Amino acid sequence: MVSHKMADYTMKMDTMKNKGTSRPVIVHNPYLCGMKEDILYHFNLGTATHDLPALFGDVKFVCVGGSAWRMKEFVEFMAAELGMQNPRSDYPNICAGTDRYAMYKVGPVLSVSHGIGIPSISTMLHELIKLLHHAQCTDVTVLRIGTSGGIGLEPGTVVVTKQSVDATFMPKFEQLILGETVVRNTDLDYSLAEELLLCSEELGQFHTVIGNTMCTLDFYEGQGRLDGAFCMYTEKDKQKYLIKAREAGVCNIEMESTVFAAMCKLSGLRAAVVCATLVDRLKGDQLISSHDVLHSYQQRPQILVGYYIKKQLNALGALQK
Amino acid sequence: MVSHKMADYTMKMDTMKNKGTSRPVIVHNPYLCGMKEDILYHFNLGTATHDLPALFGDVKFVCVGGSAWRMKEFVEFMAAELGMQNPRSDYPNICAGTDRYAMYKVGPVLSVSHGIGIPSISTMLHELIKLLHHAQCTDVTVLRIGTSGGIGLEPGTVVVTKQSVDATFMPKFEQLILGETVVRNTDLDYSLAEELLLCSEELGQFHTVIGNTMCTLDFYEGQGRLDGAFCMYTEKDKQKYLIKAREAGVCNIEMESTVFAAMCKLSGLRAAVVCATLVDRLKGDQLISSHDVLHSYQQRPQILVGYYIKKQLNALGALQK
Repeated sequence: MVSHKMADYTMKMDTMKNKGTSRPVIVHNPYLCGMKEDILYHFNLGTATHDLPALFGDVKFVCVGGSAWRMKEFVEFMAAELGMQNPRSDYPNICAGTDRYAMYKVGPVLSVSHGIGIPSISTMLHELIKLLHHAQCTDVTVLRIGTSGGIGLEPGTVVVTKQSVDATFMPKFEQLILGETVVRNTDLDYSLAEELLLCSEELGQFHTVIGNTMCTLDFYEGQGRLDGAFCMYTEKDKQKYLIKAREAGVCNIEMESTVFAAMCKLSGLRAAVVCATLVDRLKGDQLISSHDVLHSYQQRPQILVGYYIKKQLNALGALQK
Repeated sequence: MVSHKMADYTMKMDTMKNKGTSRPVIVHNPYLCGMKEDILYHFNLGTATHDLPALFGDVKFVCVGGSAWRMKEFVEFMAAELGMQNPRSDYPNICAGTDRYAMYKVGPVLSVSHGIGIPSISTMLHELIKLLHHAQCTDVTVLRIGTSGGIGLEPGTVVVTKQSVDATFMPKFEQLILGETVVRNTDLDYSLAEELLLCSEELGQFHTVIGNTMCTLDFYEGQGRLDGAFCMYTEKDKQKYLIKAREAGVCNIEMESTVFAAMCKLSGLRAAVVCATLVDRLKGDQLISSHDVLHSYQQRPQILVGYYIKKQLNALGALQK
C-alpha cells in the first residue's frame, strides 16, 4: 500500500525549505560558474542534457556504498520503509548509460555506489557534490553504508565512525595536488554519530559502537593481511600493528572514509560513516562466514540508516502518519 | 565459422609447455601454502569450491580494464579474432556471484575488470595473482587496456607505457604496509612495449606512441582539472604542472599503472599498459567528444592487444591456420 504520494512529500519539503535558513552544498571552484555545460562523465549526466534541479532538487539524504547491488537493495528497502513503493517495484539505475557507478532514487533519498577505495569514491564524490550543487539542493546529509574488518569486535558489530584516520592512525587525508602534498581534515559530524547510536539502541537488533575507523589504500598488505599474493611481514608484526591501531581507538578498517569525510566537510555536508564488521582481524583475515551470514551483516548499516532517515522525516512532518 | 576447437588449442599449449622452461607466477607469501582453503573473496571463487587448475590452468594472457562492460566486449572481440566463438555467443561472467569485479574467459585469454584507481586494482591483482598461482599457470602476460587523458596528443592516440610515474613524475609506487612506507619499482617490460608498437604499425589503423604514463589518486584535483567540485589553483598553475609533466616524458595520465607495474613485476609477470587518450589535457578537461567517438577510441587498445595476442598464438603454432 502506498501510504502517501511523492507530490505530497515534495510540497511538504518545499514548505519547510521556505521556513528556516537552509544549508547549501558548497563547491570551491570559481571555474564552474563560467562553464556553459558541465558533463558529469562518470554518471553519464550533464547540465545541458538533464534538468538536474527537477530530477534531484528534493534530495535530502544521500547514501553511498561500494557495491552497486547493495545500493539497489538499499533503495528498495528505503521505498518500503517510507511507504513510497513504486507500484511496479521498478527502481531504474539513473546512471544506466555507464557501468562506472550506479544511482537510484526514492523521494528525498539518493543511493549511489562508489566502488572500492579512495580514488574511486573521490571521483564519484566530485561529481555528486557538483550534481547536488547544480540541483540547488539544501540541508543534505550524506551517509556511507559499508563493510569493514573489525578489531576486537564480534563480527556483525556496526561501527559509526568518530574520527577517520589513515594507516599511521592520524586523523588526516593527504593528497597530491599539482604534485604538492595537501592535508585535509577528516572530522565527521559527532552529533550525527550520536543520533545514529541512539537509533541503534531504539532498534535493538544488533550491537553498534562509536569508534575510530582506519582507512587504507589496499585490502591485503595495506591492512596487514596474511593472505594476499605478497606478505613480507610475520603474523607477529601484523598482530603488533593491529594492537597499536586498537590502542589508537581504531575499531574497524575500510578503504574510503578519510576522503569521504574530507570532501563532505569541505562541501558543508553533514556526514557519517556506518560500517558493519565482517571479520575480527585479531582472529583472522579471510571472510569465512557463510554468504547468508555476511549478507545479513551487510544489511545492518542499511537498517540503521533507514531507521534514522525515517525518524528524521517523521520529525520534520514530511511523512504522513 | 569456428576455425578450430578449444580441445586442439589446449593440446597444443600442453605440448609447448613440456618443451621449454616455463615461467611460473610467483607469490611472495609463506603463509599461503599453509592455508587449508583460500577464498578469493572479491571474485567469489576459492580453492575449496572451484577447481582452479582445470578452470584457469591454460591462461596465457590476462587483459584487465576499468569497466566490466568493456571487458565483456573485449572477450567477445577476442573470441571472434581467435575463431573461438561460442556458438551461442554466450560469455558468462565467471564472478557472477559478486558485483565487485567481472571476469570472462575465451581459450587462453582471461578478461577481468578492475574498477577505478590504485586500491581497486590492487585488491583485484592480489586475488588474480593468487588465482594464477593456484591454477599453476605459466608464461602469463598481463595487459592493462584502458583510457586516459593525453598531454599534447591528438585524442584517440594510443599510448603504450614506457615507465609508469607518480604525480611527482618519479617511477615508483609508494605504499603503507603496517604503517611504514614501502617503495616499489614500476618498470614494465620494454620489449613487450616495442612489440606492441610494431603491432600498431602493422595494423595501420591509429597512431600509437611509447611514453611515460602518470598515475594519480584522483581524477579531478589529482590531475589538475579545472572542473571538479574543488579547484583551489588557477588555470595557469594547471598548465605549468602539465607542461612540467610533458617535459618529464609524460604522454598520458590515468589511475592504475604504478601499482599494476609494481605488482606484475613482483610476480614475474610480463606486463604492459596500453591506454587510449580521450582528451588533450593541454586543451581541456571535460570529455566532450560524442559517445560514439569516445567508444571508438576505447576500442583501440582492445584492437591492438587483440592483434598482438593473435600474432603470439600464431607464432607459437597454437592457432590452426
